[in-house]
Amino acid sequence: MERLGTVAVVGVGLIGGSIGMALRARGLAREVVGVGRDMARLEEARGHGAIDRATVDMASGLAEADVVVVCTPVGRVAEDVRRASEIAPRSALITDAGSTKRTIVEAVEKSPRAAEMFVAAHPMAGSEKTGAAHARADLYQDRVCVLTPSPRTPRGLVGRAREFWSSLGCRTVEMGPAEHDEVVAFTSHLPHALAASLAGSVPADWHALAAGAFRDVTRVAGADTELWTAIFRENRGPLMNAIGKLQDRLSALKYALMTDDEESIRRWWGDARARRALFESRQPPAPHS
Amino acid sequence: MERLGTVAVVGVGLIGGSIGMALRARGLAREVVGVGRDMARLEEARGHGAIDRATVDMASGLAEADVVVVCTPVGRVAEDVRRASEIAPRSALITDAGSTKRTIVEAVEKSPRAAEMFVAAHPMAGSEKTGAAHARADLYQDRVCVLTPSPRTPRGLVGRAREFWSSLGCRTVEMGPAEHDEVVAFTSHLPHALAASLAGSVPADWHALAAGAFRDVTRVAGADTELWTAIFRENRGPLMNAIGKLQDRLSALKYALMTDDEESIRRWWGDARARRALFESRQPPAPHS
Repeated sequence: MERLGTVAVVGVGLIGGSIGMALRARGLAREVVGVGRDMARLEEARGHGAIDRATVDMASGLAEADVVVVCTPVGRVAEDVRRASEIAPRSALITDAGSTKRTIVEAVEKSPRAAEMFVAAHPMAGSEKTGAAHARADLYQDRVCVLTPSPRTPRGLVGRAREFWSSLGCRTVEMGPAEHDEVVAFTSHLPHALAASLAGSVPADWHALAAGAFRDVTRVAGADTELWTAIFRENRGPLMNAIGKLQDRLSALKYALMTDDEESIRRWWGDARARRALFESRQPPAPHS
Repeated sequence: MERLGTVAVVGVGLIGGSIGMALRARGLAREVVGVGRDMARLEEARGHGAIDRATVDMASGLAEADVVVVCTPVGRVAEDVRRASEIAPRSALITDAGSTKRTIVEAVEKSPRAAEMFVAAHPMAGSEKTGAAHARADLYQDRVCVLTPSPRTPRGLVGRAREFWSSLGCRTVEMGPAEHDEVVAFTSHLPHALAASLAGSVPADWHALAAGAFRDVTRVAGADTELWTAIFRENRGPLMNAIGKLQDRLSALKYALMTDDEESIRRWWGDARARRALFESRQPPAPHS
């Protein structure tokens, strides 16, 4: 890829900070500008090496941007994309890193100018930690980034977005916004809902008898409350569906237990185990931690 | 603790092998005898350093045992304890490592001799791996071992069992067999059921969009099918109850999503997150891996 001029990262937390660090580590842009609302936190991100320059003024941050990456919480992404489209040069690519896509794409496309500058994206990596202090240049290395253009998205722009995310180390995948939301309801939001359900179901008095399985299954329940409240709300239809499917599967086990149906229990576990083994066999190497 | 003479480990897989390795690494016994059904696998365990001597003849393995540790699958533990009580010296301590306790204790106590020699135990550590090849001396280091004596268990013997498990590095906790089973239904069996439910609910086509949360929550679904079929069956009453409670918690989230009740979603997540943080703050250091 040709070296970019200015890349503006709007919202410099774990996600935006890691994007900035990857851009800087790989020398992909002349300048990475961090745009936020809190100068102290932006300066912290700059100290951590996530951005070259910090500003709370979106107009000055975006005036010469080739690429704008909106990394604010999902509930704010669409509005920030629309604002960015009014400020950034007409030729700029605007992309985002939100965990849900349908409501964002629909809201962005109410603005024709924004619709012609925006390619929705979801780079699939994260952490239960938040803040630029935990950002790292290899967060997206070998991770999947889902691009969810709509029929209105200019095809040339989709190519630029694919190139941008690939340059950060991602493998890009393309699908519709609604399809994306249905899939991540199962692959990301449901695991979080299960982790929190389990963490909330076990009284603290019983923690002494909880070992590795409990620790692993509940780990992501440590993630930020505001972040996950917003994600759950944005994707509530698909998530309700995914929860229902999961409850059905638990009910099937409960029934097999009630009837002490050994063969059904064995098949129930064995099918899941085989699916898990398939998943494991396809994993990229773990990132450095 | 005074050095033991012979310790017999019946069933030398991951659990029994790790107990043997800990005994040998700490010089706690003059001899660790491995008793099993398959000489080739026993020799493999000996090659890995898990036992000093291997035999498929329980009579010869247990003839001079000071302590017998039964580490066979939960469905076989009670029978193996009864057989061991008929062979081992009257003064021997028999203990086990089964993941459920009520049915084992009830079945063992049908034999008065076994009842007077047995202290049921559940050392709370494991792995999704199986076999003595994955055994390690520090598997139980700083882990909890639950002792579940019944009113018929001689108190002096409980003291000896506590001393034995402590000498392997465990922190011992004492409770009734039924209470143990209710607690581990939530802290161990339910996490496994959730992991397998999730692994089984996500089509393989969607694995590309599954990241760290999915990987962590499903990890223990890789555990052995026969092992978990047996554990689920042995503890089916308490596990059915735990699954029901978990389903209720998921339904509460589903209702909050349906009504888009932001405050309820925030509280639902926040409560779980706080409970998870409490758990994390009480964890012993991670074992070496």
